[in-house]
Amino acid sequence: MGKPLEGIRVLDLTWVLSGPYSTMILGDLGAEVIKIERPEVGDIGRGNGPHVNGVSTYFLSLNRGKKSVVLNLASPKGREIFLRLVKQADIVVSNYVPGTMEKLGIGYDVVKKHNPGIIYALCSGFGQNGPYKDKPAFDVIVQAMGGIISITGEPGRPPVRPGASLGDITAGLYMTIAILAALRERQVSGQGQMIDISMLDCQVALLENAFVRYLATGETPGPLGTRHPVFTPFQVFPTRDGYIAVATMGGAQDQWPVFCAIIGRTDIIDDKRFETGWLRSQNNDILEPILNEAMRQKTTSEWIHEFEAASVACGPVNTIDKVAADPQIRSRHMIVNVHHQAGGDFRIVNNPIKYSRTPCNVERASPGLGDDTEEVLKGLLTLSDREIAEMRKSGVI
Amino acid sequence: MGKPLEGIRVLDLTWVLSGPYSTMILGDLGAEVIKIERPEVGDIGRGNGPHVNGVSTYFLSLNRGKKSVVLNLASPKGREIFLRLVKQADIVVSNYVPGTMEKLGIGYDVVKKHNPGIIYALCSGFGQNGPYKDKPAFDVIVQAMGGIISITGEPGRPPVRPGASLGDITAGLYMTIAILAALRERQVSGQGQMIDISMLDCQVALLENAFVRYLATGETPGPLGTRHPVFTPFQVFPTRDGYIAVATMGGAQDQWPVFCAIIGRTDIIDDKRFETGWLRSQNNDILEPILNEAMRQKTTSEWIHEFEAASVACGPVNTIDKVAADPQIRSRHMIVNVHHQAGGDFRIVNNPIKYSRTPCNVERASPGLGDDTEEVLKGLLTLSDREIAEMRKSGVI
Repeated sequence: MGKPLEGIRVLDLTWVLSGPYSTMILGDLGAEVIKIERPEVGDIGRGNGPHVNGVSTYFLSLNRGKKSVVLNLASPKGREIFLRLVKQADIVVSNYVPGTMEKLGIGYDVVKKHNPGIIYALCSGFGQNGPYKDKPAFDVIVQAMGGIISITGEPGRPPVRPGASLGDITAGLYMTIAILAALRERQVSGQGQMIDISMLDCQVALLENAFVRYLATGETPGPLGTRHPVFTPFQVFPTRDGYIAVATMGGAQDQWPVFCAIIGRTDIIDDKRFETGWLRSQNNDILEPILNEAMRQKTTSEWIHEFEAASVACGPVNTIDKVAADPQIRSRHMIVNVHHQAGGDFRIVNNPIKYSRTPCNVERASPGLGDDTEEVLKGLLTLSDREIAEMRKSGVI
Repeated sequence: MGKPLEGIRVLDLTWVLSGPYSTMILGDLGAEVIKIERPEVGDIGRGNGPHVNGVSTYFLSLNRGKKSVVLNLASPKGREIFLRLVKQADIVVSNYVPGTMEKLGIGYDVVKKHNPGIIYALCSGFGQNGPYKDKPAFDVIVQAMGGIISITGEPGRPPVRPGASLGDITAGLYMTIAILAALRERQVSGQGQMIDISMLDCQVALLENAFVRYLATGETPGPLGTRHPVFTPFQVFPTRDGYIAVATMGGAQDQWPVFCAIIGRTDIIDDKRFETGWLRSQNNDILEPILNEAMRQKTTSEWIHEFEAASVACGPVNTIDKVAADPQIRSRHMIVNVHHQAGGDFRIVNNPIKYSRTPCNVERASPGLGDDTEEVLKGLLTLSDREIAEMRKSGVI
């Protein structure tokens, strides 16, 4: 009953977020992830705060369960060692800026000669080709250029960035999918291949609905506060003591009459302007003040009680502390303890993939820089103590 | 040079968004996706506007390339047909509310008896267990309860929903990863298994950084407008004619002096309050008005010219129409034409996974309801014309 990716070895040349998020998932699912880091500095994510007991919580969260091998890829010996590791690996992952791997002499053309079955996955801001390929990019740049910031925020107010690093994480998720499908294809063809993931492309894939609406109608979507572009009521309302999310079903099972009855506004059930979800969305300027006024009369928990009794989907707008303490999240074991060798015990987010036969809970913390250098080099390449000592002396490891 | 998932057959019992997004990706990557829909109505997503030439653009975008088979699973004959299809399938996917599949007599325990190798993937708002498992959930509910809405928006203003259906789509991406890893495990063990994806769990996985910060420090994150919690400047600024995103590198390669020189404020380079990215984030209340004032002096394109010359990452805050016309998006073929049999030509978003050896471009539009019923039932189950006619007469198909 091994984990699904047991026996798969990943050479992880990633840093910061998009790449590490992808190899984090591969590791959670049982792959052996060997993170190859620069001497002394390592992944610059190690410098990202807040630090607790000397441990970067940023790095901890993304690099749990991985091994750390220090290797100077800019040295001829470091490159040689890397290419020997390639022979025993299934996957190489990198999110350095395009061209970096080639400069180090470990571009796909070189690597595949050493292992034609290798799956070689690259992630970058804009992809490996096109006019922007050499532009620097970070999460907020890609979120801005991809369109999501233009449709997030209150109408008439400045744009807002969604509160998660969607530029990086969406790309990390797509890269993981790409790698796993390529593994399956390799099983059929016996051959590896290169994968080219662009963070900007992935934003477009994330916003498929906004794009198809624009491409079909010519209308450019704008920000909607908490509303949905097509359904109403399907949004966050102010209550007497906070906020509540309510989402009614439309179409044949339209819950509008039930919703109106609960908020004590049966008088607007038959209002022609509010007859369908689509019309309610079109006439939201008139409708929203009416609904907000009604919703302000009771507390969030009073409303949840009433909407739940009528099977109308609803829920509180939780802050992060509330989510961490939520009974459902506890029951699903979504927060787990890990023990960091240097920094002690930490609580981090668990893997959300629940299998019936091969559970994949997060068990180990992140490695210290170079913690596994000797074990990996001796174990996989059968290097001697003397060779290890020489490489250490010359700064290769 | 087949697509990576060629030869994999998916029985797709999904509707609306989270499930269809997952099977969309499986189909893009070459799997045969057989969407099983209720007679007459089908996936209720077919009713979601805007419609063009009678085609739901909402449904089109998510269901390109799939086959549609009409089957009444509530009838004994429909159930029998489904279980015969199971024997020839690799994957069953459903995002009906927990308990629905069991009520239809096609729960995992039944299905695996007909095909022990089946990978049976379920997605729901809160997962298959825990106190909330029977609660109804839609995207905005899960985004609210999972915490992202509490950290999206302007400080001191009402909460904002990110402009994409992250509750559904994040779960769809994780479900796809779960399925592909289970396929690999089956290759080793010969056995299938059940997958249980909760949209709420996936929100926690998406917000890993917010959670690890809270769990390590006890400080509850709040909304930050367009800012990053740890780095500054790393945000959207107002310009003379719009907005621009700028993201500087911090740490050892701190671009703060370069940034200050470009905006003509060399006087604040050595200000102790702004010495590091972390301090600038802490002292943002003082810093932001200074930077906003400077950034308002030039147009977005003037600033882009200047920041790019200094290798500072930057980009415009694009609306959806601008993204669709962007030269990089064009160069990456991220918008493609598909021909819908009934509605004519449409432009939709392409698959963002770019392979060197097995390209996976989107080629076909979405099916009409039941378009493939006869072909699939005759082809896979060798049913006769008479049997098909009888089932049609009795409302099974």
